[in-house]
Amino acid sequence: MKARVFVTLKNGVLDPQGKAIGHALNGLGFGEVGEVRQGKVIDLELAETSAEAARSRIKEMCEKLLANTVIEKYEIDLRN
Amino acid sequence: MKARVFVTLKNGVLDPQGKAIGHALNGLGFGEVGEVRQGKVIDLELAETSAEAARSRIKEMCEKLLANTVIEKYEIDLRN
Repeated sequence: MKARVFVTLKNGVLDPQGKAIGHALNGLGFGEVGEVRQGKVIDLELAETSAEAARSRIKEMCEKLLANTVIEKYEIDLRN
Repeated sequence: MKARVFVTLKNGVLDPQGKAIGHALNGLGFGEVGEVRQGKVIDLELAETSAEAARSRIKEMCEKLLANTVIEKYEIDLRN
């Protein structure tokens, strides 16, 4: 089973990297771009076959390693 | 309109960061984890309202700034 995990900064947490991208895009002539936020995407391949079990294991991975839950939130997207 | 852009390394391009995450997960007791790839996710807010126009503008942004198309590929996911 494959899974995609998104790790992004929580709303309200300053995102200087996103701001820099936004400024650069505006400067390049993309004036229609408003707020930009940048995060990480992690693609995992799992031996697990049950979606429910996989989700709970990935949640554990996020809490333990993938996300800093003080400032980051995560979303899990399962594909098989 | 909101859009999410994924920028990930092309298949076949070595991903040491993904490998490091995989090793760390295995070491933490997540033995079911196989290959791991890491990429970037960029959330954009656009003044554009037409999905087709937005997609073509974002494609241009990816080619010009967001992705290094020599080694990276990108996917565009529009939400309104």
